[in-house]
Amino acid sequence: MGVLELVVLTMNYVGVFAFAVSGALKGIDKNMDVFGCAFLGLATAFGGGITRDIIAGNVPPLAFRSEPDFIIAIAAITITICMYRKLANAVGLLPYFDAVGLGAFAALGGAVALNVGLGPLGVVFAAMFTGAGGGIIRDVLAGEVPLVFTREFYATAALIGGAGLYVLSWVTTLEVAMFVSALSTTILRIASIRFGWNLPRVKMDG
Amino acid sequence: MGVLELVVLTMNYVGVFAFAVSGALKGIDKNMDVFGCAFLGLATAFGGGITRDIIAGNVPPLAFRSEPDFIIAIAAITITICMYRKLANAVGLLPYFDAVGLGAFAALGGAVALNVGLGPLGVVFAAMFTGAGGGIIRDVLAGEVPLVFTREFYATAALIGGAGLYVLSWVTTLEVAMFVSALSTTILRIASIRFGWNLPRVKMDG
Amino acid sequence: MGVLELVVLTMNYVGVFAFAVSGALKGIDKNMDVFGCAFLGLATAFGGGITRDIIAGNVPPLAFRSEPDFIIAIAAITITICMYRKLANAVGLLPYFDAVGLGAFAALGGAVALNVGLGPLGVVFAAMFTGAGGGIIRDVLAGEVPLVFTREFYATAALIGGAGLYVLSWVTTLEVAMFVSALSTTILRIASIRFGWNLPRVKMDG
Repeated sequence: MGVLELVVLTMNYVGVFAFAVSGALKGIDKNMDVFGCAFLGLATAFGGGITRDIIAGNVPPLAFRSEPDFIIAIAAITITICMYRKLANAVGLLPYFDAVGLGAFAALGGAVALNVGLGPLGVVFAAMFTGAGGGIIRDVLAGEVPLVFTREFYATAALIGGAGLYVLSWVTTLEVAMFVSALSTTILRIASIRFGWNLPRVKMDG
Repeated sequence: MGVLELVVLTMNYVGVFAFAVSGALKGIDKNMDVFGCAFLGLATAFGGGITRDIIAGNVPPLAFRSEPDFIIAIAAITITICMYRKLANAVGLLPYFDAVGLGAFAALGGAVALNVGLGPLGVVFAAMFTGAGGGIIRDVLAGEVPLVFTREFYATAALIGGAGLYVLSWVTTLEVAMFVSALSTTILRIASIRFGWNLPRVKMDG
Repeated sequence: MGVLELVVLTMNYVGVFAFAVSGALKGIDKNMDVFGCAFLGLATAFGGGITRDIIAGNVPPLAFRSEPDFIIAIAAITITICMYRKLANAVGLLPYFDAVGLGAFAALGGAVALNVGLGPLGVVFAAMFTGAGGGIIRDVLAGEVPLVFTREFYATAALIGGAGLYVLSWVTTLEVAMFVSALSTTILRIASIRFGWNLPRVKMDG
């Protein structure tokens, strides 16, 4: 395994952790029991990838064959449930860990689509949904309109990373393309947090 | 390609356009940003067909391989976002375009189920869900109880079209069966709008 | 077919009936029309199994090939719609019928996962989601936060049944394993109703 691949894989583990924490926190926020919090944590961490694999015909989905990812997610959920009051101080950091994961999720999701021979449309969708799908599923299960539909520059960062991956996959190795794609998405997302980027709304007076 | 097939295909494009507009309008109504509006537009136009293809084992779903449909949906979403204030006068026509699409979606959805060898149950479900599934997904993503569950004669029209397709497929060519099925669904749906048909509710005092 | 298999199959039919009734009742409660009530009834009875089959690559899902199950569900929905006022007295029994079904659904779901060669994670998830997934889908379609996320010892009973099935499948025949698993889940669930078990919530002051 090359060094760049190792970087993307490490970013992926950071993302699984951050996504699982965000799902469990949403469950706590909605006053769910421990099963509900665990389900929301797992759905946030793996829902995007499972949907992508189902659409790509890649079944059973990767998530059911990735023991390390599962163990990391369960650890993240357990820590969140046991120490959520103490975590309050660290919650401000969550979007940054989440951004690291978003980049890896988008790059890995796009790579799965490339591997099964999907075209540009499929690759960009797979990157976007692997990154943003978990959060969409989390919010629907919590009875809310998905956050990424109303605020912030989030899914769009994954979308751009997916487009970059597709273009780069023609001119360089997949490993380099994934590394650059993951890094670009993460940097775009972090910049959007720092500078308060939002996509325009259509109804200005809403 | 025969003339009847061409009619059904044209109806399908009208439907992709109308479904994408209705999804984008729902996003605007919910004060979503442009990404949310685009996602809702695409989910409304293609969500029913994608779900049908996943259930039928027809992956990657047709929607990811239909460039013309995708371009039409993106055009519909762009027009809706850019001119939604001016569209207000045209919104009253939307249900009629939608009805044209519903017929084509149901007939094409039922034909996919016939092609993969599903029985009557599968054909009727595929027709109904290809037609009504996009709207169900749109409403769930917008945090609402799906409209087709509470009002109007909509999914039932697609269901009848699917049943007609299945019966006709035994006595005539698939092309004729699809044409008659699509037209029947559309006529039923338009009649229901004109005459204010609703399915009975169970709880009369609700 | 052995006697134990017959018991599990009978339990499954009881479950299909109870699940379809609970979905149709939710539709009535939400003031839906007959189509909405029927859709919710079918989604509750078959949604968990359909999702499991899609994830396991077992398409078209079993539910589209099981005529007896479908007929039972339609009968349950029809009875519920026609006699829901008279049913009010019987609704208190529903959780017990539901518990019988939960056991069978979990055991049958876990067995499907074993058959396609999934590991312990997949078997436990399949058992849990086959049992609890229908109710989750029902509540999301009705615009509510799924009940199993916030209250009661329900999905956890199916989860334990799935784990039992996996362990037992190594030491005895699949038929015996399924019988013991189904019975354990049902007994656990009924005990939880009788004794008011709930999983702990994380936010105690919520």
